[in-house]
Order: sequence, then structure tokens, then C-alpha cells
Amino acid sequence: MNIAILLYDGFTALDAIGPYEVLSRLPGASVTFVASEPGIKWADTRMLGLSADCALAQLPAPEIVLVPGGPGRATAAVDERALDWLRGAHATSVWTVSVCTGSLVLGAAGLLEGVRATTHWGTMDELAAYGAKPVAERVVFDGKIVTGAGVSAGIDLGLTLIARIAGDAVAQTVQLAIEYDPQPPFAAGSPRTAPPAILELARANRRRRAIDLS
Amino acid sequence: MNIAILLYDGFTALDAIGPYEVLSRLPGASVTFVASEPGIKWADTRMLGLSADCALAQLPAPEIVLVPGGPGRATAAVDERALDWLRGAHATSVWTVSVCTGSLVLGAAGLLEGVRATTHWGTMDELAAYGAKPVAERVVFDGKIVTGAGVSAGIDLGLTLIARIAGDAVAQTVQLAIEYDPQPPFAAGSPRTAPPAILELARANRRRRAIDLS
Repeated sequence: MNIAILLYDGFTALDAIGPYEVLSRLPGASVTFVASEPGIKWADTRMLGLSADCALAQLPAPEIVLVPGGPGRATAAVDERALDWLRGAHATSVWTVSVCTGSLVLGAAGLLEGVRATTHWGTMDELAAYGAKPVAERVVFDGKIVTGAGVSAGIDLGLTLIARIAGDAVAQTVQLAIEYDPQPPFAAGSPRTAPPAILELARANRRRRAIDLS
Repeated sequence: MNIAILLYDGFTALDAIGPYEVLSRLPGASVTFVASEPGIKWADTRMLGLSADCALAQLPAPEIVLVPGGPGRATAAVDERALDWLRGAHATSVWTVSVCTGSLVLGAAGLLEGVRATTHWGTMDELAAYGAKPVAERVVFDGKIVTGAGVSAGIDLGLTLIARIAGDAVAQTVQLAIEYDPQPPFAAGSPRTAPPAILELARANRRRRAIDLS
């Protein structure tokens, strides 16, 4: 199965690497990192570079197309080459996938009109502007479009998708291979569970981060 | 806080990127990916290249040194430049950290003698050869040495470490930022919880993967 992961400067690394780590273990999977301009793409921290080895035109019809999120998604959402490629890839894909604010790039490509979809909790109100039906769930399937919540949700998404594609046993074997037996030290990973003071701190950090990167 | 993550060809990407994503959000953190030979380092799938921007000699004394695991760890464990650097970095580090089979590289550097430590469930029996005291826990602290279980455990490790360094509120804020509210689709992430047939499949895959990469 050919899997294309779209990179752009300012992506959030775990958005891409969580599902990569899972989906690359699907038997027969071939994962390619693509970009409008191939080369090193820098993560949002500017401390990590990933190699996007392939130009968009080289992989016009992946079976799975995946878009990670990150502060750079604002630029990706106005990159007409990326949006054109996404529209073309989606026309023939088996699954069209996003993690975190990658769904807003799918939205900018016009792919979420009337679609139930999710995103990072901090940007849920932006989804509706693209005609999507926002859903505060961790992994959302609507036809062949699969969207995940913030950053770390791509691991749950990847495993759920493998179960759909290859069955529960394959997904469970991958889960065991990556020892995904999560034991978060706190119950603070969602606005539903985080203490109010933590939610306020996280919101302030998001605003500051957006300013730093603008 | 200066954080150095050691890369080598054949590392497992999520081993490195899980804790990177968490620790890079520690206020004041500076993360650098280092390698014996700087340049693109290929993950174990050979489908993903990360840029190791810095030679070992350029960062002799990071405050946190972190070693990911992966099938390439067998080569890393006989790379005298990497082992020398690890011994030097450990001498002055605040925290010396591994994820997954990265602990076996720490062991090869002679850093685990008498130390309580963990690794991927599939390699637990190799730890004792380095004089370590194997512990089947997700995150293990022994003095300044912190070891994590397989692949995805680096996220739990990173959050636990931030709590020790900067307090629970900072760790909770990072957990919320990455929306780490895990909802694995199965209870198959540990040999304790996986069905026996899945454990046997995962063991067979590990043997095949080791042959493929040898």
C-alpha cells in the first residue's frame, strides 16, 4: 500500500511520525514523505529536520494520503500546489487522512464540505469555516476521510486504520510491537480532563507560539 | 536546557520523536540531533530520513542525553566514537536517558552496571548481560539514569521527566498541548495484556525484521 505523508516547514513532528511509525508496519506498506519543494522540512521547533524525498508530481495517486498539522499549516493552507495535489490524490485515494490541524489543510483544499471531522482541541472552531461538521472525538471516520485529534492522536488513528484495512490481529500485533500500553503520568491530555488552570496555561502557550512563528 | 538525541542508521523513529516532541516543549529547551557522522540518518524502515545536524564533538556536555532504540542499535553498540561520547556526556549530564533498546547502547557504554533499567519487552533478557537489573516497568528512574520501555514509552517518559525537572503543572500543560489522552483501540500493547496468539505473531515479526536488517 502506497502511503504519502505531506510535509511542510512548521509541521509538528509527532503528528507525522506517530502514524508513520504505525502505518509503516502494515504488511506491504511503502511510506513516502512528499513536499511541494523536496528537501529538508523543518519542524515547528526549528530543531528537527525531516527529509521529504519526493516531489508531489512523483506520487500523484497514493492509496493513503496523510496531512500532519502544526503552526506551518497556515502556509500549507494557501500553497496552491499542495492543495491541487491533495485534491487530485483524494480523487483516487483509498483513505484521506489528517492528524491535528492537518484537517484544516484538507479543509482549505475543499475536501471537508459536509464531512464529520476533528482537529486539535484548540482549533475546533476553525473547522466549521470549511463546511465540516466538527466532532470532539479522538479519531473520526466519515467515508474514506479519517481525521485525528491533536498531535499524539495519530497513533490511535494509525492503529484504528490498520484494523480497518488488515483486521484486528494485524493492528494488535503492531500495537504490541511499538509497546503501545500508554501510562500517562497525569489525566491532563484533554480539555475534558485537564484542570482549568492547566487549560488556561495551554491556551496562553498556543497564543505565544503562534506569535513566535508568525 | 541542552538536550542531545543520538541518531544512527536503523533507529526507530518514534523512539526519538516521542520524547523530542515532549521535551522540546520544556521552557528553555534546546534539542540537538547528533551523530558520529552528521547528515541524514535513516530510520529502520529506510523510508524516513532525519537530519543529524551536529557532530558528537560539538556537544560534549548536554544536560540531557537521550538514546533511542531500533534494530541499528547493534551497530551503535560497537561504535566506539558514540560509546566514548556517551561516557563523556554521562559524566556531566543531569539526566541520561534511553527509550526502547537504546538502553542496550547505554549498557554497551558501561553505564548500566548495577542500575535498575528497562527496554523493549522483546529484549529484556539482553539487559542483564550489561550488569543492569532488568525491570518490566514503563519508565524506570535510577539516580539520573532514566530508561523507557518500547517505542511509544518515550512519550510517557518525557512527561514524567518534565514533571521532575519543572513540576507537575508544566508537564500537564505539555500533555494537554499534545492532546495526550490515549485511546488505544485494543488492550494489546504489552505482553501482559496481548492475547497469546498476538504475542507469538509479534515475536515472529521481530525475528523476521532482525533478519531483514542484518
